[in-house]
Amino acid sequence: MLAARAHYAGNPDHWQESIEEDLQRLSASRPTAVNLFWALKRIQELVAAHVDEPVAALKQRMLVEANCMIDQDNAVCRAIGEYGVDLLLGLNVGRARGSPCNGADDHGRATGSPYISILTHCNAGGLATAQYGTALAPVYVAAERGIPVRVYADETRPLLQGARLTAWELQQAGIPVTLITDNMAATVLAQGKIDAVIVGTDRVAANGDVANKIGTLGVAVLAREFGVPFYVAAPTSSIDMSLASGDLIPIEERKPEEVTEGFGRRTAPPGVAVYNPAFDVTPSRYVTALITERGVVRPPYAASLKALL
Amino acid sequence: MLAARAHYAGNPDHWQESIEEDLQRLSASRPTAVNLFWALKRIQELVAAHVDEPVAALKQRMLVEANCMIDQDNAVCRAIGEYGVDLLLGLNVGRARGSPCNGADDHGRATGSPYISILTHCNAGGLATAQYGTALAPVYVAAERGIPVRVYADETRPLLQGARLTAWELQQAGIPVTLITDNMAATVLAQGKIDAVIVGTDRVAANGDVANKIGTLGVAVLAREFGVPFYVAAPTSSIDMSLASGDLIPIEERKPEEVTEGFGRRTAPPGVAVYNPAFDVTPSRYVTALITERGVVRPPYAASLKALL
Repeated sequence: MLAARAHYAGNPDHWQESIEEDLQRLSASRPTAVNLFWALKRIQELVAAHVDEPVAALKQRMLVEANCMIDQDNAVCRAIGEYGVDLLLGLNVGRARGSPCNGADDHGRATGSPYISILTHCNAGGLATAQYGTALAPVYVAAERGIPVRVYADETRPLLQGARLTAWELQQAGIPVTLITDNMAATVLAQGKIDAVIVGTDRVAANGDVANKIGTLGVAVLAREFGVPFYVAAPTSSIDMSLASGDLIPIEERKPEEVTEGFGRRTAPPGVAVYNPAFDVTPSRYVTALITERGVVRPPYAASLKALL
Repeated sequence: MLAARAHYAGNPDHWQESIEEDLQRLSASRPTAVNLFWALKRIQELVAAHVDEPVAALKQRMLVEANCMIDQDNAVCRAIGEYGVDLLLGLNVGRARGSPCNGADDHGRATGSPYISILTHCNAGGLATAQYGTALAPVYVAAERGIPVRVYADETRPLLQGARLTAWELQQAGIPVTLITDNMAATVLAQGKIDAVIVGTDRVAANGDVANKIGTLGVAVLAREFGVPFYVAAPTSSIDMSLASGDLIPIEERKPEEVTEGFGRRTAPPGVAVYNPAFDVTPSRYVTALITERGVVRPPYAASLKALL
């Protein structure tokens, strides 16, 4: 935590004040993902409820609470994985639902592959959450159960979380992974190479609109166009019933250098204007289902989310 | 030309043989773009028709032919620019045709911008062709006529032609350009920021299917989804009536390192599988119109292309 320096500098009198400052600072760090606020609020409430206790006791409580959140997150991710696998098994293993490109007919066709092929965008695996991840949880659970599964990973510009994190963690887990640039997603979907898209989310609005890493909207539209189901792995902590729709979700814009010098080297002319939103909002009409730790949620989301929570 | 070393090495006897070899080698260098073969065939026919002439005379003929092709290309690009501007002016300047994101209604809406906003993918400007380019020709001609025009440029992974070439040449020409990563195209289209998409093409099949840089298919699908016209600037030399449809166009696949080490630095784990097609095929149903040097061609393309050529 940010306050670590202060703690270890041996200034226990200001410790609780310093924790409060840090919680505020963390709250202001990223606007889009709602789980951040959910987790910070849990710690904040804990501190408030035990404000008179000695520092050592309060630290112990916070540690216990943090470990408890990790355990809960593991359980949540595992449950998303289980529900997700059931969903994938319902799709006919090894058959892609892609409608074809290039004027072929509109019927689904077998990929001729024994694998269930998943396309994912960004990283919502074990490096982004606890253990199984959210979007990758169904992949890991499928692999555990001996179900052949493989992943196409969008590299996810500008920060390349797909290339640097998703491809790496799947490789470590021994799960076949093929890296593509984001603009190749249309081709693999059109070619019938993909059985399902699964992505994570930073925040789900009450109507089922989904904020996630920039590029998710494009994948969602393409999935629908080519007849491939588009699933969002959404722990209930990411569902924000206080926002009626996705256009109310704050979208973080980031510095131009992520686009122009993202690889340690300038790859665009100096002074060029850049638009760099870090997230986009996918309207719920493109979302086939949300996979939560309490089960699979389908449209109409206004009703199904209310019933879930 | 590749044979230059041989020519200047003073071996005139084998010169014509060497030219023929070079033409073959150039023919085999890239499979997708058809203009390459068109231009090489012109030189090949010239050589064949004058095979008995002295080397110096034949060289002179080839130079004249090459300069003639440049002049023709200039005229072709200029004509595409003129037809393209007329098309853009028909769209209501400063109004985006984008249908909205996030559950808003489906009517077009003003961007509130005095500019005609064009989204383009890859580079089909003056660096890829002669002078005006193809996809960028309408932009340059609009600017010449004093019509306010601006461009959103997809960076175009993996080789970043949008960032390195399109952004640069528009900047040099004083035309406002905003660089985005490919996966942001969905957002700018959904936000109603774009009046029209214009891209180039490497080959158009007889039914109007269009091969172009990887990522074009995705942009085309998104443009249709968000109600933005999708235009392809297509000199008639890129139209290949010998291919009935786009699935017959050969698609070049390139080495994995373009994706994993594209920026002089490894950005993906060693040994990861990569799929790297350099082009994709956009079925003609997504193409609002082709802009050729002989005029604007609309669906049904099988008939309109036949009438054009």
